[in-house]
Amino acid sequence: MGHEFTGEVVELGEGVAEFQQGDLVVVNPLISCGHCKMCKRGDQQNCSRRSIIGIHHPGAFAEYIKVPASACFPVRDALAGALVEPLACGIRAVEQAKVSLDDNVVVFGAGIIGLFSLKAASLRGAGQLILIDTNDERLERGKAFGATHTLNPKNVDVVEKVREITGGSVEKVIDAVGLPATRQQGIAMAESGGRVVFIGLHEDDTVIPGNVIVRKEIEIVGSFSYSDQNFAQGLSLIEKNAVVPDASWLHVRPLEEGKSSFDEQIDGSAQYPKIMLSV
Amino acid sequence: MGHEFTGEVVELGEGVAEFQQGDLVVVNPLISCGHCKMCKRGDQQNCSRRSIIGIHHPGAFAEYIKVPASACFPVRDALAGALVEPLACGIRAVEQAKVSLDDNVVVFGAGIIGLFSLKAASLRGAGQLILIDTNDERLERGKAFGATHTLNPKNVDVVEKVREITGGSVEKVIDAVGLPATRQQGIAMAESGGRVVFIGLHEDDTVIPGNVIVRKEIEIVGSFSYSDQNFAQGLSLIEKNAVVPDASWLHVRPLEEGKSSFDEQIDGSAQYPKIMLSV
Amino acid sequence: MGHEFTGEVVELGEGVAEFQQGDLVVVNPLISCGHCKMCKRGDQQNCSRRSIIGIHHPGAFAEYIKVPASACFPVRDALAGALVEPLACGIRAVEQAKVSLDDNVVVFGAGIIGLFSLKAASLRGAGQLILIDTNDERLERGKAFGATHTLNPKNVDVVEKVREITGGSVEKVIDAVGLPATRQQGIAMAESGGRVVFIGLHEDDTVIPGNVIVRKEIEIVGSFSYSDQNFAQGLSLIEKNAVVPDASWLHVRPLEEGKSSFDEQIDGSAQYPKIMLSV
Amino acid sequence: MGHEFTGEVVELGEGVAEFQQGDLVVVNPLISCGHCKMCKRGDQQNCSRRSIIGIHHPGAFAEYIKVPASACFPVRDALAGALVEPLACGIRAVEQAKVSLDDNVVVFGAGIIGLFSLKAASLRGAGQLILIDTNDERLERGKAFGATHTLNPKNVDVVEKVREITGGSVEKVIDAVGLPATRQQGIAMAESGGRVVFIGLHEDDTVIPGNVIVRKEIEIVGSFSYSDQNFAQGLSLIEKNAVVPDASWLHVRPLEEGKSSFDEQIDGSAQYPKIMLSV
Repeated sequence: MGHEFTGEVVELGEGVAEFQQGDLVVVNPLISCGHCKMCKRGDQQNCSRRSIIGIHHPGAFAEYIKVPASACFPVRDALAGALVEPLACGIRAVEQAKVSLDDNVVVFGAGIIGLFSLKAASLRGAGQLILIDTNDERLERGKAFGATHTLNPKNVDVVEKVREITGGSVEKVIDAVGLPATRQQGIAMAESGGRVVFIGLHEDDTVIPGNVIVRKEIEIVGSFSYSDQNFAQGLSLIEKNAVVPDASWLHVRPLEEGKSSFDEQIDGSAQYPKIMLSV
Repeated sequence: MGHEFTGEVVELGEGVAEFQQGDLVVVNPLISCGHCKMCKRGDQQNCSRRSIIGIHHPGAFAEYIKVPASACFPVRDALAGALVEPLACGIRAVEQAKVSLDDNVVVFGAGIIGLFSLKAASLRGAGQLILIDTNDERLERGKAFGATHTLNPKNVDVVEKVREITGGSVEKVIDAVGLPATRQQGIAMAESGGRVVFIGLHEDDTVIPGNVIVRKEIEIVGSFSYSDQNFAQGLSLIEKNAVVPDASWLHVRPLEEGKSSFDEQIDGSAQYPKIMLSV
Repeated sequence: MGHEFTGEVVELGEGVAEFQQGDLVVVNPLISCGHCKMCKRGDQQNCSRRSIIGIHHPGAFAEYIKVPASACFPVRDALAGALVEPLACGIRAVEQAKVSLDDNVVVFGAGIIGLFSLKAASLRGAGQLILIDTNDERLERGKAFGATHTLNPKNVDVVEKVREITGGSVEKVIDAVGLPATRQQGIAMAESGGRVVFIGLHEDDTVIPGNVIVRKEIEIVGSFSYSDQNFAQGLSLIEKNAVVPDASWLHVRPLEEGKSSFDEQIDGSAQYPKIMLSV
Repeated sequence: MGHEFTGEVVELGEGVAEFQQGDLVVVNPLISCGHCKMCKRGDQQNCSRRSIIGIHHPGAFAEYIKVPASACFPVRDALAGALVEPLACGIRAVEQAKVSLDDNVVVFGAGIIGLFSLKAASLRGAGQLILIDTNDERLERGKAFGATHTLNPKNVDVVEKVREITGGSVEKVIDAVGLPATRQQGIAMAESGGRVVFIGLHEDDTVIPGNVIVRKEIEIVGSFSYSDQNFAQGLSLIEKNAVVPDASWLHVRPLEEGKSSFDEQIDGSAQYPKIMLSV
């Protein structure tokens, strides 16, 4: 386990000239083959042989791990560097959404992927940026990521309220939750010709209104991790401090607290969108 | 009723200079406002005030109808002209599918919209063009529209067979049926990053695999009628004889047989993908 | 003359219901026919019958002017409203440049169009944003519009310096000057596959290196005024205060000083990128 | 020299499992690094370290050559296989031109690249397809590649004649000659918003009308060789017999006649758009 991480180079493979021992690097955990049709056209995230360090290969919850040199990129700061991966996911979601200048964008889910999608949408010049979550503390943090409005479905009919805020013009929706309810609400909010990105992974079976999709020419599109280009964009933005780790949403804990931290995330009691474990 | 039609100009509105009595014209039945955001960007089919002659306005099942001069376009042949509307629908579907050179394309439904989607995909240089329908006679006619393969789900597992034909590379799917089953099969066939267009309108509620959409970055997109530009493309292609009415798939009958013809289409006994009524 | 302006509604044409006397409106001076191929696909700026209020029709250097109601849009502030037109030009340039997240962008010319192109590129999430002009005071003002670097060709070899700043990665260039020299430098700076937008209008004949265009797959693209959608985006951004008139770059003068103001702009002595005349 | 070729596998490098001795293969002569930004996004033709077998590496005018296994693809026929490379160039040009359904397309130059650009435009559903060349025999052969009209500038004013044929609607131009005159005529023909692709390489310095580019929003774009995806498309089309070698335009000669064949091409006396040398 552990796929978002930075580390220090302690040993070099044969022929690796671009790094030295002691270098601080972030690792792109998505390993692609480089030769299939998807890789050849720049969609490494859809590589037919893709694998992920931390899932298919041993990950960063270990003292040392072995990774390809081509997956390593120098970073200035260990903590910020570990944010490249989730930011790249947000950049991908916003690319899949094709957010353009002054588009109104709704994001479901104030977890780290939702927040970084929000941030990427904000950087691309979105108009109204509406964040929806059931956790008020997380919603509050969304403002630092660019939310112009935050909505809690416990308190309001979010479809109705979004219509009120936007006058019905919702060009783009990003669902970073992955429940049938949020996916359906996203489709219900989108204007004709609007784009709804599914990035959240929870339940699989989801009922959608097929005829509404036709009559309003709605587009639904999946977003999975990121292309190599998205990772490079994320890295560049982190290195320029476009996103700075902040104690209000990022909690650093010792690796030993890994298990309790996961439990918190799963039972929903976690107040921090992001918890990092440090050795 | 009646939204696909040609007619003769018998009377001109005040100030109409571009037509004369006796001109043969096809009418674009989709009336858009020209002023809303959708119209302003060229998506007349998504006009917030769109209406359709034959649905919202009296249609061509009448001896005379009144239509805006701006919706009329000269045609050489009454029968061919009446095909502009359904061809424009197929052009739209293929535009929404973003069919590009050598893409493998699967089309569900060998009705007139499916066949014209097939034709448009063929014109745009598709690779394998697989047509799926439960009616063997209709399937047979698909070959004239560019089908390289035809499949009947009564005889084969279409998902499996399509994989065999394409080696799994299905870049684009067009569902011109509109049933949950065909939509689901379309999604199951599409390769990672593939695009599935919904144009058929039957049942609304459709279960889709939300997590598969994410992991394969599948795109689902609706297609409704056509933009003004698509109508112009359809007209131009018809005038250049890219599609020629043919007795094998187009049956011309007197207007009086309208009712029985509709019954045939509804109960599925119709052998002709397209029946035209003539006065 | 006078094509960037706001005004008060003093008299309504027959049938105009959406405005009242006393309303403050901005006028989109680009009049398009709404019916040609270009209009139908959302490219009103390329309308085959386009005309411009202030050029082809009497403009705002008059006490009263007559304009189509469909060209009027309510604004809150007369001064800010008059910036919609030039901002829309900048939005168009950036749309033509296809600026995307973290792209490095070079803008030639710190006049109002260059500055608003800079602003639009900044809103769309550009990375390094380099402004080039021979006037140091104007360059200085560019920082408020998002410039991360400013260069004066009197002091440095701009092609060389841009390479140094960007490491050679110049994804987009916008030339808001229109001289052969700036166009050529823009082409020389662009990376392979890069896009160079010509928006400035000065000299016509310009020598370009045709073989370099081929070998580096450079794209050169013109940008003229704005589509109706770009105007709407500009209006929306102004109304949200994304750009606020500021005395450091916008000088308001009585209409009587019109002639001397034009002279200043033409002889290059103008310190203000933008001078507004007020009645 | 020699960058368009097929050959038989006579010896395998270590670890090469996908080929056997005796296999007939076509070689993609464009070698890209696979790691730079351009490669990562699928633009191998713009690879910062690109090199070409036959130019930077020893080419096929030798009895044996050594090539990377990843650049080899099985083909059925040696002669047809050698056409993959030039066809891929045509596919790239048409992709850069963004030819879409019913676009009118003008191609300058009836050499092999012009003819294959014509063919690719035809496969993508172009409307009028006008071929321009000074050699009437070559023009004549263009009809087999999809030309609907052929023009010889010795006999007609091509800009005027193209306007007559198309009514002024020239969406796309491909210049496969590379002279200032053909590039300028291409720009003069293009409609507002039209796209002019430069693929021909002859003279470098070319005067273009910068202000016309602005006012008509013309796009000029270079096209160089092909991406890996374009090569795969070309290969697929050749294997499906979309283009079949034909004695009317393809002349096979013994390798010994190489020198005289080049002389013919250079002095303009060559009647065959394509000459292949065989061992």
